Amino acid sequence: MKRLRALSACTLFVGLGLVAAVASAQDPLPSWNDGKAKQAIIDFVGEVTKDGSPDFVPVAERIATFDNDGTLWAEQPMYFQFLFALDRVKMLAPQHPEWKTKEPFASLLKGNVKGALAGGERAMGEIVMATHAGMTTAEFETLVRDGTANAKHPKTGRLYTEMVYQPMLELLAYLRANGFKTFIVSGGGIEFMRPWTEKVYGIPPEQVIGSSIKTKLALRDGKPVLVRLPAVNFIDDKAGKPVGINQHIGRRPILAFGNSDGDLQMLQWTAAGGGARLMGLVHYTDAVREWAYDRTSAIGRLDKALDEAKAKGWTGVSMKDDWKTIFPPVNK
Amino acid sequence: MKRLRALSACTLFVGLGLVAAVASAQDPLPSWNDGKAKQAIIDFVGEVTKDGSPDFVPVAERIATFDNDGTLWAEQPMYFQFLFALDRVKMLAPQHPEWKTKEPFASLLKGNVKGALAGGERAMGEIVMATHAGMTTAEFETLVRDGTANAKHPKTGRLYTEMVYQPMLELLAYLRANGFKTFIVSGGGIEFMRPWTEKVYGIPPEQVIGSSIKTKLALRDGKPVLVRLPAVNFIDDKAGKPVGINQHIGRRPILAFGNSDGDLQMLQWTAAGGGARLMGLVHYTDAVREWAYDRTSAIGRLDKALDEAKAKGWTGVSMKDDWKTIFPPVNK
Repeated sequence: MKRLRALSACTLFVGLGLVAAVASAQDPLPSWNDGKAKQAIIDFVGEVTKDGSPDFVPVAERIATFDNDGTLWAEQPMYFQFLFALDRVKMLAPQHPEWKTKEPFASLLKGNVKGALAGGERAMGEIVMATHAGMTTAEFETLVRDGTANAKHPKTGRLYTEMVYQPMLELLAYLRANGFKTFIVSGGGIEFMRPWTEKVYGIPPEQVIGSSIKTKLALRDGKPVLVRLPAVNFIDDKAGKPVGINQHIGRRPILAFGNSDGDLQMLQWTAAGGGARLMGLVHYTDAVREWAYDRTSAIGRLDKALDEAKAKGWTGVSMKDDWKTIFPPVNK
Repeated sequence: MKRLRALSACTLFVGLGLVAAVASAQDPLPSWNDGKAKQAIIDFVGEVTKDGSPDFVPVAERIATFDNDGTLWAEQPMYFQFLFALDRVKMLAPQHPEWKTKEPFASLLKGNVKGALAGGERAMGEIVMATHAGMTTAEFETLVRDGTANAKHPKTGRLYTEMVYQPMLELLAYLRANGFKTFIVSGGGIEFMRPWTEKVYGIPPEQVIGSSIKTKLALRDGKPVLVRLPAVNFIDDKAGKPVGINQHIGRRPILAFGNSDGDLQMLQWTAAGGGARLMGLVHYTDAVREWAYDRTSAIGRLDKALDEAKAKGWTGVSMKDDWKTIFPPVNK
């Protein structure tokens, strides 16, 4: 009976959003400087969780979506998934003597990434298929686990999974403490993210949406396996993001965060719903502690979305001004 | 401080699976007769939730997947989604004078369903595309809400959403009370289920997996919408079910329930994981209270899966013997 009472008290607290009250007694976003962005987030969460507020949103509908590359973790000097693919090309090269003379692999193996990418999307596609397909989903998961456990960022020497943004980790936790369900909606590979997002972001695999290649059920030693095929299944970028959100979630987010033009349609899709909304845009303005780039960057170009954010009053986050710290401390 | 203490007590209870202890003080499955099936379910839940048990499974990995047609709700005399499509054909007929002479519509409009379906999968596909595509996702949601709020089952006079199985509703609730996340994995249309699964089954849209047609982002009156296109995106049936599970959940279920050969690969996929597993198969054995069919039925054929269930010792559920009641009471 005592247990039952404690349980219903718990249910009640969550239902009434009192978790929020408890959590915000301390600063829920300690790595954010006081300013417009932080205030907009706290105000928004307050509005949608306050019972009786005109903008109150039931827990089940508190859906928050986050881009990954450049929003939750870094994306320079190159998307980390591409660095992972490069490592795989080097590892696989002995089994592919033909790569010595075949582009884009020949350039890659000579360390000439620019030359390799001169082939554009087709070259990129060939690299991805050569390194991401042909194995089972379980085998690929092991490759990703090994890669993310060992490969170091070329500039900072951190693991890729340590190149995540501390202020965003706090934001994810703050939202979840307020009944939000947090999702990743990334142009990156869904199976490249799932092995580590739960540990790093607290986001379970079923809340990760990303690009994918096709898979096919097959039998190996009498056991069913899923084999990764060299064929695109879905590109979760730009106009694909609302499609992916609808496919996986079936509900419109009330909060979305991105950092580039690839996120524009997700932010527009979020903004087009009724009631209170928060559209956030991380802006790389910190050449000292991280990077500074926007309208002309090849990676993470932020141009149209920057204009629209300004025109529509979305929540801009200046890395330099709004973030007290960039990365979490590294536990060795 | 009191609040904080109540909260951590709650977290602790859930973490330790004490919710289970509280719930099972009463019979958690009152509509199930005592017998092998009920005992297998209760034993399984006990094993995977008991801390220190060799088969203990952390909450995050307690994934349970359920087929819908014939497992959670009825599927006779015809899949309800097909009945919905027939109603739509009748409604749309005035806008399509050509249907008077064009199959499969001509036969359908004369009430000759068998004749219409003589065209096989192609005829079926034409009916689905004519009735399920061409509108926005929001418009389709409204059509489904209207349909499920009004259309009555031809035999029982109940709404389709009242043709759900009471013992399965109890099973879903029992699993969730024990930290399971419950998913639907159905050959039916994902967007046909989502508008009502939360209310009827307690399963939110993001935990519904099903077949789908393609969608495309477009602008209408300056607002982004998703338009449903007449092109198949994914068939979540047979060998497609493990593919769909991997795409949406990214984790292997530890419990799965189906009722037909369309569920065989989902059950095999579930069985192929390590540790304790429960594979359940609903068997239509009750010609008096519901239906009796298996190996030769055109709808919900259960043949290969029945053999495999017997050979592998999966949990067979005989509707006649294992279920005390079939449908929930209707609230008018």
